[in-house]
Amino acid sequence: MTDTPLLICGAAFTEDERARLSTAVSSVSVESPAALEGLAPGLRERLRVVAYKGQAPFGAREMAALPGLGLIANFGVGYDAIDLAAATARDIRVTNTPDVLNDDVADMAVGLILAQARCLLRGDGWVRSGRWSKYGEMPLAWKVSGARAGIVGLGRIGREIADRLAAFKMEIHYHSRQQKETPGWRYHADPVSLAGAVDFLVVALVGGEETRNYVSAEAIAALGPTGVLINISRGTTVDEGALLAALEQRRIAGAGLDVYLDEPAIDPRFQGLDNVVLQPHAGSATVETRRAMAELQLANIRAFLDGEPLPSPVN
Amino acid sequence: MTDTPLLICGAAFTEDERARLSTAVSSVSVESPAALEGLAPGLRERLRVVAYKGQAPFGAREMAALPGLGLIANFGVGYDAIDLAAATARDIRVTNTPDVLNDDVADMAVGLILAQARCLLRGDGWVRSGRWSKYGEMPLAWKVSGARAGIVGLGRIGREIADRLAAFKMEIHYHSRQQKETPGWRYHADPVSLAGAVDFLVVALVGGEETRNYVSAEAIAALGPTGVLINISRGTTVDEGALLAALEQRRIAGAGLDVYLDEPAIDPRFQGLDNVVLQPHAGSATVETRRAMAELQLANIRAFLDGEPLPSPVN
Repeated sequence: MTDTPLLICGAAFTEDERARLSTAVSSVSVESPAALEGLAPGLRERLRVVAYKGQAPFGAREMAALPGLGLIANFGVGYDAIDLAAATARDIRVTNTPDVLNDDVADMAVGLILAQARCLLRGDGWVRSGRWSKYGEMPLAWKVSGARAGIVGLGRIGREIADRLAAFKMEIHYHSRQQKETPGWRYHADPVSLAGAVDFLVVALVGGEETRNYVSAEAIAALGPTGVLINISRGTTVDEGALLAALEQRRIAGAGLDVYLDEPAIDPRFQGLDNVVLQPHAGSATVETRRAMAELQLANIRAFLDGEPLPSPVN
Repeated sequence: MTDTPLLICGAAFTEDERARLSTAVSSVSVESPAALEGLAPGLRERLRVVAYKGQAPFGAREMAALPGLGLIANFGVGYDAIDLAAATARDIRVTNTPDVLNDDVADMAVGLILAQARCLLRGDGWVRSGRWSKYGEMPLAWKVSGARAGIVGLGRIGREIADRLAAFKMEIHYHSRQQKETPGWRYHADPVSLAGAVDFLVVALVGGEETRNYVSAEAIAALGPTGVLINISRGTTVDEGALLAALEQRRIAGAGLDVYLDEPAIDPRFQGLDNVVLQPHAGSATVETRRAMAELQLANIRAFLDGEPLPSPVN
């Protein structure tokens, strides 16, 4: 038996989330993986679980600093910050918080489509600034219902997005590694073909090295001057340099982005664009969903400490 | 046979819309119904059709100024600016442009829900201002999927809204004069009961005197401190004074509004609110839909002049 089995790791945890974890399990807390080595060796040896939240890499070096580590419980569905191979090699289990955030992330994707095409930010500014009463009607926006949507990555979140867009009478196209059973949605064997066939290209891939720049300069070019790119996955999945250039040169119509290569210190060129809607990686950032994610993370930690099956293991 | 059968009436027509009408039919143009009486009597007598766009009242007095008038072709589905009883008494036909805008207006309603609950405007500002990198995560927003939606007025547009929200797994409630055949949606006999049962109250009524203040102070109170009001119908349908007071005093959580009592010179108290998303009556303001509305207006005018059945009569 250990006295302090849990390390809460990451500045991204809110006070509520931190309090919930530390009330449930005796714990210590560090702001980042880099701070790990500053802990007393005796304490490090007693730690059996890391509750993790954030984007900072947690790799072999951090794992080596915690010889008794048996579980890394990630807050979030994407665990690309955690070196899964290194964990598996050390017999460390990794869990994440899938499914409970699918609805929110899909809602964010649809919200970005509507906000971008229907110019909702410009509209709000048009009213608040008094331009409406001074200059009359705003320039026209673009129709969403009935347009063609392309989902890159038809996993659980991609499927939720497609189901919502189908209710907008959109023609659904998708690309994924394998063709899936769908209600007549059109499969494309590669993302460039998909981008060329649609008005809205929605990226719903997993992150990590395998999908780096998966939406390439060529795919962005295929989207064309009336196309809109939506990314709610990870900044790494899209060639960000090519995206910025295409947006600046109006080679695509616009973008709705919740994720970026460098978060939160994103490339300042994004902030100069008037054809994008930008969100601060808020796909799952609702009161209800963050609570559900915290509960699932804690359930994994409790199951591990009790020797029970893990609710949502990834290795 | 007349030389100039068409009067284009309304400052709201765009140059494109005006050009399309005047190319098709010999016409004169006035900025508002008030300018009618300034036209030469000989010209007024030859006018047989008014192509109308706007909110300024067009009533018995204006009709009397045009003794040969046989058709008022309204641009838009809502024709509450036109005195229908006066027109019918004079044997003047009225047409509108229904259905072609249903999708856009429904999209606007869903966009307002997502923008309001998920704080998309604050999110964009959080990123653009650099607050994200300076202060970290934004305060949490509120979940949309799975919430309870109440539609006030389950006409063609209300139905389109409900169909979309059902894809967000929302529990659909509605109020309309009669109960309708629905896929298990819950009917409420009055709007106050509806407001008390839902998280998002979406107003999709027709305008005009019969629905003035239909969403009353009592209904707004029933919505309560976590409720959000969405109005994409007409400013008249909601008790605007009660709505403003409830928003200022945080007795409801927020609103998403596309319509107001006085447009475009809206009550400036709206512009001081941080819990509303405001749009400039842009429900149908897309390139695609405005073109379809212009085509339907012109089709009604042509049918009338040719003695053919009217595509979309309202009397």
